[in-house]
Amino acid sequence: MEQALHVITLGVADLERSRDFYVRGLGWTPTLDLAGVVFLQVNHGLLMAIFPLADLGADAGHPASPGTPFSLGQNVSSEQAVTAVIESARAAGATVLKEPQRADWGGFHGYFADPDGHRWDIVFNPSVSIGADGTVRFSAPSGA
Amino acid sequence: MEQALHVITLGVADLERSRDFYVRGLGWTPTLDLAGVVFLQVNHGLLMAIFPLADLGADAGHPASPGTPFSLGQNVSSEQAVTAVIESARAAGATVLKEPQRADWGGFHGYFADPDGHRWDIVFNPSVSIGADGTVRFSAPSGA
Repeated sequence: MEQALHVITLGVADLERSRDFYVRGLGWTPTLDLAGVVFLQVNHGLLMAIFPLADLGADAGHPASPGTPFSLGQNVSSEQAVTAVIESARAAGATVLKEPQRADWGGFHGYFADPDGHRWDIVFNPSVSIGADGTVRFSAPSGA
Repeated sequence: MEQALHVITLGVADLERSRDFYVRGLGWTPTLDLAGVVFLQVNHGLLMAIFPLADLGADAGHPASPGTPFSLGQNVSSEQAVTAVIESARAAGATVLKEPQRADWGGFHGYFADPDGHRWDIVFNPSVSIGADGTVRFSAPSGA
């Protein structure tokens, strides 16, 4: 199996509410906006889909249920940018779970939850860089 | 907030079991393999992290609990490739949730669950293409 991820699908309780949050609230542009599913491009060749939770369960042939066993991360370029993103999400109706603050691993971050509780971790991590070819590199952890 | 996703973090019950599955079972290469978290690059500038579920909850300041409200998708180039990936995942110890089969939207796919139940949807979708600049395009749905 190739080491590759192309779509992250979020199961949502109310597709219209989620469309409101991502498209109208955050101002994101759908790649494909259908009655039953919305696809938004969120990186090079990467889609995020929002799809009713019951349909996601039916698609897999096994029910899907709410929960929080994952997070979605967005890297930004400064501590100020973390705060700005958290404020923009709050303005769009998100619940802020963790106000922007220093992290014990040396960076700065905050968390918000979308209308279904899906968690976004907004991060300034000075040890991460992405090369022109898309390769992600970690420099030595601070203190190492 | 920028329309961007850089990290998908999976909360896992047993980090060693998950490392065994992804690194030894599927043969994936970590970008950063630490005692408490493993990062694997899964697309252009995109990381997948495996991180103990309790630590994920602590990081957000709110407990995280198991559930299945999302799926991870990998697009492959043919029906045969879907079957090959599902078989490779089965061989690595995954539970196959949906055997490879035709989908009502015109493609072909199958699902497996990793050791924590995180679901991978392996998809041949002839209507999706990715440009050299990474832009994802959908052609008209079949029948439209």
